[in-house]
Amino acid sequence: MLNSRLKVKLGNWLKERGPWSPIVISSRMRLARNLKDFFFPHHADEKQLAEISSLIRDVVINDPALKKFTFISLEELPFLDRLMLLEEHLISPDFSAGGKGRAVVLSRDGRVSIMVNEEDHLRIQSLLPGLQLLETRRMVDEIDERLSLHLDFAFLENWGYLTACPTNVGTAMRASVMMHLPGLVMTKRMREVVDFLSEGGTAVRGLFGEGSRALGNLYQISNQVTLGESEEEIITELSEVCREVVKEEEKARKTLLREDEMEFLDRVYRALGTLSYAKKVSFEEAIELLSTLRLGVETGLLPPFDGIDLNELMFRVRPAHLQNFIKKSLPEEEQDIARASLIKERLNLQGG
Amino acid sequence: MLNSRLKVKLGNWLKERGPWSPIVISSRMRLARNLKDFFFPHHADEKQLAEISSLIRDVVINDPALKKFTFISLEELPFLDRLMLLEEHLISPDFSAGGKGRAVVLSRDGRVSIMVNEEDHLRIQSLLPGLQLLETRRMVDEIDERLSLHLDFAFLENWGYLTACPTNVGTAMRASVMMHLPGLVMTKRMREVVDFLSEGGTAVRGLFGEGSRALGNLYQISNQVTLGESEEEIITELSEVCREVVKEEEKARKTLLREDEMEFLDRVYRALGTLSYAKKVSFEEAIELLSTLRLGVETGLLPPFDGIDLNELMFRVRPAHLQNFIKKSLPEEEQDIARASLIKERLNLQGG
Repeated sequence: MLNSRLKVKLGNWLKERGPWSPIVISSRMRLARNLKDFFFPHHADEKQLAEISSLIRDVVINDPALKKFTFISLEELPFLDRLMLLEEHLISPDFSAGGKGRAVVLSRDGRVSIMVNEEDHLRIQSLLPGLQLLETRRMVDEIDERLSLHLDFAFLENWGYLTACPTNVGTAMRASVMMHLPGLVMTKRMREVVDFLSEGGTAVRGLFGEGSRALGNLYQISNQVTLGESEEEIITELSEVCREVVKEEEKARKTLLREDEMEFLDRVYRALGTLSYAKKVSFEEAIELLSTLRLGVETGLLPPFDGIDLNELMFRVRPAHLQNFIKKSLPEEEQDIARASLIKERLNLQGG
Repeated sequence: MLNSRLKVKLGNWLKERGPWSPIVISSRMRLARNLKDFFFPHHADEKQLAEISSLIRDVVINDPALKKFTFISLEELPFLDRLMLLEEHLISPDFSAGGKGRAVVLSRDGRVSIMVNEEDHLRIQSLLPGLQLLETRRMVDEIDERLSLHLDFAFLENWGYLTACPTNVGTAMRASVMMHLPGLVMTKRMREVVDFLSEGGTAVRGLFGEGSRALGNLYQISNQVTLGESEEEIITELSEVCREVVKEEEKARKTLLREDEMEFLDRVYRALGTLSYAKKVSFEEAIELLSTLRLGVETGLLPPFDGIDLNELMFRVRPAHLQNFIKKSLPEEEQDIARASLIKERLNLQGG
């Protein structure tokens, strides 16, 4: 039996649609803030980290405007809970490993999180379905303002917010958009798109951020520049870029249908065949296959799966989500078996 | 529309079972014979090749005891017919490419063939299901004896039959057994078995002989020695070796079932899933997948396919057989589509 300490409702946003869905899956906004008069986390000792954490905890607990937030020390959080938060993109891979003085602040609806003592003292983040960077920014701004009533943030007139890593100095803002781009991958145009975006100062990363693979054709597109441009400019530019990418993805899907529908159909149906018959499926393979089904449904090659949200299923099959869902901690091979059953059951697939 | 010149009934033996079936698929026996007073084919000029061919043709046509045989000049045989014979293992890959003065003599039941002017003037071959090398030998001996009434074969007292390649001198006999060894492949023991057999003077080759891949876990095991041992000794030894390999394969299958049934089940069901849903399947993939299904049925993981012989299907999906069966010459991609449909239809698979 799992003993989760997360009392928040995760992943609710997944069932919702937003602007430019389904190609744009989600928008994420992150602000980095640091407390004046404290070393950055990687230079602070345990005592200082505890002090920082405690300061933030007091604010969260005592400000009635923040009552929808829960403060949880990472040390109190079981491994599987941390993995859940990582899989939801609410904390970073490094942060999910735990560490002294680290804590996470979560909104009850699972859309806002604050990592305490990650690279910076505070990393405030919000998450929404579809392309809605302005709204995510409004959400983090609200919390930022509220926190700044109680906490003294390091800020220099001509520099902006100070951050542990100089690439974040300035707005200390990172906006990032998760996109599903199987069409560009299958037409072998992704490399070209990545190069084009990089030249324009936009970073393209895999499913779990820096250095991770673009599992399931899921890409995170985010701003690189934080200095010398206003937040508004950054958001406008990034939104524009993402809309362009959506158009390219749509074009790629049309190309696939027009130029080699049989090849395309074959891929989609093979994915369906494997998910219908496999007795065990790894997380990575599940994401890949569901990505292909999703593309099949969106292009009309497959009928939609009744009442089943493929977005949501792409989360449910992640290791911690899967174990949380079936309420059992399992070794990896048994997870793969449970995953195969779960997918078959949810999609009502016949076979095997 | 295909215009086949093959009036023989090919592949009939496939539906039959023989001793040590199903792991032993077939036994093949081949004798090499050369005419005295003629150069070996690779040293003979076109005129001589035509003369040799004509000599043999006259014997086949005029001897009433050989009336169940047809003589066909390779030049008269369309490409697809030659490919059919290759896929049936009745002629060699090199021979199927055609060539001046070459001809094939076929028995009406497709169990006996003679290649004229391949590496040797005559290569007499017979084919039977299961492990029955003695019977295949009886069949080729019968023809050899009959032909020797009319033709003068090159033979030296202390050497035996002379052949173009010195490795065949002596008995000039090659016995070879086609085996289906997925268990040994999956338990990664095939390398070891091949090494063991090679040390003992037995050759192991892929589906289409020397240098070819062991597609679908199909291996040809044959004698290497032709000099210094009697035909009986060679046949007895090779049969013994094959029975040993069958036992090792059976052991491997039990290991798979005992040690990782889930992994095994997953492989078998994935093959079924792919064949149920794929829209196009290449020849190589079809052989691999059918090989896995065959293993699944033989180990009891899958119920048998009603009235369908997987052996036969593993032939029907080969390019020439496929086109012959659907009576249409198709470009490769369309063959793949037709192959996917054919398999689905024959196995009565639902999906896609």
